[in-house]
Amino acid sequence: MFLKEILAQQEKYLGKEIKVQGWIRNHRPQKEFGFIDFSDGTCFKHLQVVYDLKLDNFAEVVSFHCGSSILVEGILEKSEGKGQDVELKARKITLLGDCPSDYPLQPKKHSNEFLRSIAYLRPRANLFQAVFRIRSLAALAIHEYFGKNGFVYFHAPLITASDCEGAGEMFQVTTLSLDKLKGEVDYKKDFFGKKTSLTVSGQLQAETFATAFSKVYTFGPTFRAENSNTKTHASEFWMIEPEMAFVDLEGNMDVMEEMLKYVVKYCLDNAKDELTFLNKFVENGLIEKLENLVSSKFTRVTHEEVITILKKADVKWEFAPEYGEDIAKEHEKYITEYFHGPVFITDWPKDIKAFYMKQNDDGKTVAAVDLEVPGAGELMGGSQREEDYDKLVKRMQELKMNIDELDWYVNLRKYGTCVHSGFGMGFERLLIYLTGVENIRDVIPYPRTPGSCDY
Amino acid sequence: MFLKEILAQQEKYLGKEIKVQGWIRNHRPQKEFGFIDFSDGTCFKHLQVVYDLKLDNFAEVVSFHCGSSILVEGILEKSEGKGQDVELKARKITLLGDCPSDYPLQPKKHSNEFLRSIAYLRPRANLFQAVFRIRSLAALAIHEYFGKNGFVYFHAPLITASDCEGAGEMFQVTTLSLDKLKGEVDYKKDFFGKKTSLTVSGQLQAETFATAFSKVYTFGPTFRAENSNTKTHASEFWMIEPEMAFVDLEGNMDVMEEMLKYVVKYCLDNAKDELTFLNKFVENGLIEKLENLVSSKFTRVTHEEVITILKKADVKWEFAPEYGEDIAKEHEKYITEYFHGPVFITDWPKDIKAFYMKQNDDGKTVAAVDLEVPGAGELMGGSQREEDYDKLVKRMQELKMNIDELDWYVNLRKYGTCVHSGFGMGFERLLIYLTGVENIRDVIPYPRTPGSCDY
Repeated sequence: MFLKEILAQQEKYLGKEIKVQGWIRNHRPQKEFGFIDFSDGTCFKHLQVVYDLKLDNFAEVVSFHCGSSILVEGILEKSEGKGQDVELKARKITLLGDCPSDYPLQPKKHSNEFLRSIAYLRPRANLFQAVFRIRSLAALAIHEYFGKNGFVYFHAPLITASDCEGAGEMFQVTTLSLDKLKGEVDYKKDFFGKKTSLTVSGQLQAETFATAFSKVYTFGPTFRAENSNTKTHASEFWMIEPEMAFVDLEGNMDVMEEMLKYVVKYCLDNAKDELTFLNKFVENGLIEKLENLVSSKFTRVTHEEVITILKKADVKWEFAPEYGEDIAKEHEKYITEYFHGPVFITDWPKDIKAFYMKQNDDGKTVAAVDLEVPGAGELMGGSQREEDYDKLVKRMQELKMNIDELDWYVNLRKYGTCVHSGFGMGFERLLIYLTGVENIRDVIPYPRTPGSCDY
Repeated sequence: MFLKEILAQQEKYLGKEIKVQGWIRNHRPQKEFGFIDFSDGTCFKHLQVVYDLKLDNFAEVVSFHCGSSILVEGILEKSEGKGQDVELKARKITLLGDCPSDYPLQPKKHSNEFLRSIAYLRPRANLFQAVFRIRSLAALAIHEYFGKNGFVYFHAPLITASDCEGAGEMFQVTTLSLDKLKGEVDYKKDFFGKKTSLTVSGQLQAETFATAFSKVYTFGPTFRAENSNTKTHASEFWMIEPEMAFVDLEGNMDVMEEMLKYVVKYCLDNAKDELTFLNKFVENGLIEKLENLVSSKFTRVTHEEVITILKKADVKWEFAPEYGEDIAKEHEKYITEYFHGPVFITDWPKDIKAFYMKQNDDGKTVAAVDLEVPGAGELMGGSQREEDYDKLVKRMQELKMNIDELDWYVNLRKYGTCVHSGFGMGFERLLIYLTGVENIRDVIPYPRTPGSCDY
C-alpha cells in the first residue's frame, strides 16, 4: 500500500490495519516509545509512526537509523500531535534495509551545494521531493494541455546535421576514434557519413509537422555547448516548442498565455503541499506570485512602445534603452512592474532576431514576441514565421545562410504555404519560476554544465 | 475553426456557416461544380468541400492544385455522397498558398521508400497522418497511465560519462576540434573535462529516483551507435523505463501487463479512424490483434519451462533450444502460439543477462522477464534488481566492471536498500505493433540510422 492512497483517503483507512514500506526520514526513540518520520516518497507528506514497548523487537527498533527502509504494520489512528491528522500505531516494524550512520543525508539542514555533490541521494530530501514532483506534475500538465487542445506531440530528432539558427555552439556527435585522427577529418567515415551534432531546437522540424497536422508541439531535450557557468544555463535541458498553422502572432500569444496559466493552475491545484513548503522555505510569496499570474491579464505592447516608456522613465539605467536594440534585464524588470504583471513585447528589430521570423511591413521589425514575467524575466519567446518564399530566401541570402541545406524548410513556403506561428519555452526556466529555486542545477535531476557530467 | 471540433460535433454545426483553413488533399473539378478533399490535419477524416458556378471565382478555383492551402467559407450540410455524413457547401474559397504541379506528394499510391525520401512532406500523407497521430496518442496514454498511478516522471540525463551495461556501442559527445587532434586525446580539454557519450538507458539513474519516490518512470530518447541496417534498429529512439521500489518480479509483470493494455485500449478508443485505415491498408487483422491483447490474460512461465516445451515440440528448429541459452525468434513465435497469447518468460540464465539483475537462489538464473507478444516478439524486458550489496559487488567483480565509477549505484544497496524492479519498453517497437507498419523508419518523424541523418 502506498502512502499517497492512504493519506488521500484517510477516512476510509482510519481504524484499519495498514501495511506500508518506505524509509525512516527521522527517528526520535524514547525510553518506552518512539516516533518515526516515515515516507515512501509517493506524496510530499510523511506519516508519523508511533511505537512502544509492546513491539516484540522494541529494543531493536529504537536503534534503527535514519535512511533505513522498513516495513510497518499497524492501525491508522487519529493523531493528537501537531502537523498531522493521522498517525500509524505500529504493531510490527521490520527492518528491510539498514543504513549506516555515515549516511550523508542526515536529517538536518544541508546546503544546496552539498546536496548537489550527492545528487543521487538528494531526491530523498524535502526540497527535492518538492522540486522533482513539481517537475513531473508540470510536464504532465503540459501534455494534458496540448492533448486536450488537439495538438499532436512531435518528437524532434536529437542528432542533427543542420544548425537551426546558429543559435549557439553545438556538441558534436561522432563514432570516429578520436585517438586515431590526424588533420582533416573524413566525415564519410563517421557513423552518419557526415558531421553531426546535438540539436539546439526542434522548431524547424516542428514546422514541417505543423503544415500537416496544423497544431503540434515538441517536448524534448535540447543541448547548448555554451561555456557559461551561470545559475540559469545548463548544457542539456528540456524545451517545449509548439507550432501552429493558420495562427498569427496574436493567436500565438493567446496560446502562450493560456498554456502558462493552465500549467501554473495545475501545479497550484495538484502540488499544494509542495508549494506550501517552497513558499515557506525557499521563496516567500511564491504561492501569491503564482496565483497572481493565473488571474492576471497579460499586457501586449510593442518593442518600440517599450523603449519609449523606458526612455521616459525617471531611472538611471546601467544600459541606455535604444530603439532598434535589445533590452536588458533591468528593463525587463521595470516593464513588468510598470504594467503590474506579465507583458508580451512584440515586433522586435529584425537584426536582433532569427531569420525565420515574419518580416513586418515597416521593413525594420519582425513579428516576434517575448513574454516577460514578474520575478522570472523572459519566460518564453516566439514569432509568426515568414510564410513568403521570396522574402524568406532573400533574408537567408542577406545572412549568407546555406539555403541548399535547408531546402526542405524553405520548400514549406512553396507547397501550400500558410500563416503559422510558434514559440519555445525552456522547461527548466519554467521550473525555476514555479518552485522559487534559483539555480537551474537544482531543478534538473542530473544537471550537465561546463566541466560537470556526473552520474 | 479546426476540423476536429466540427466533425466531433456535427449536429451542432449542421446548417451553420463555418470557416476552415487547410489543404487540398485531392481535387475533382467538373464543368459546373467540383469536389475538394479538404483536411487541416487535426483529425484523420477529411471534409468534402462542394462548390459550383455560384462561386465568384469558379474559373480560378477549378484550377487549384493539390497541396495548396485554402480558406473555405460555407454551410455544413448533410452529405448524400458515400463515405461521409457531412460536407461543406462552399460560398467562398480563397487560395492562401499555391502548390506547383511538381509537388512530390500527388494524390496517388507512393511507396514507403519514396515517402522516406520526402520525409518532411510525408506527414501529409494518409499513412503518416495515421502513424504519427497514433505516436502522439500512445505517448499521451503512457503519461496518463503513469500519472494516474502516482509515478513521478523522471528525466534521465542524455549526455553521460558512464556506460549503463556496456549495452552497445555509444555515440561520443565532444566539443574538441577534431581537425586539430593528434594522437592521445586530452579529455581535460573537452567540454565536460572527461570523455562523454549519449546514454543507452536511463535505468540506473531511474533507480536512484525510485529509492526516493517509490514509483518513477522515464520517457525520453536513448541512442545506440550500432551499425545494423535492419527494419527494427534505429540509432535514436525513445524508451519508457519505469522503476518501482518495494515491487518484486511478480508486481513488475502486473504493471507491464496493465500498462500495455492501457495504452492499447487508449488507442483503440481514441484512434478509431486511424486504426480502421491501418487495418485496411497496412495490416489485415490489426484491430482484432489489438483487441485480443487487451482481453487476454498474459501467461507467466520460466525460461526453463519454455526450453522444455521447445525441446518437446515436433518442430525442426533452425536453432536448437538449449537450457542456459538465449532463445531465437522462431522460439518466441512458437511459444506465443503455444499459449495463444502474450507470454512472460521469467528466470533467465544469468550469463546472458545484465549485472544488476537479482540473482536467484539456484545460483544459475536471475529474476529477469521478457514479454513475448504474438506478432511483435519481445516487446518489453525487465527484472527485479539485485538489492543485496555484497551480491551485486561480487557479480560486478566477476564481470570485471569498474565499481568505483558506479559507486553511487552500488551505494543504493547500502543506504536503506529495498526490493525493487523495473522494465524497459522501446517506444518505436510498441508503435510498430500498434500500427502494423513494418519498418522503424516509418514510425519515427526523422529517423537516424547508419549513414542517414537528414533534416
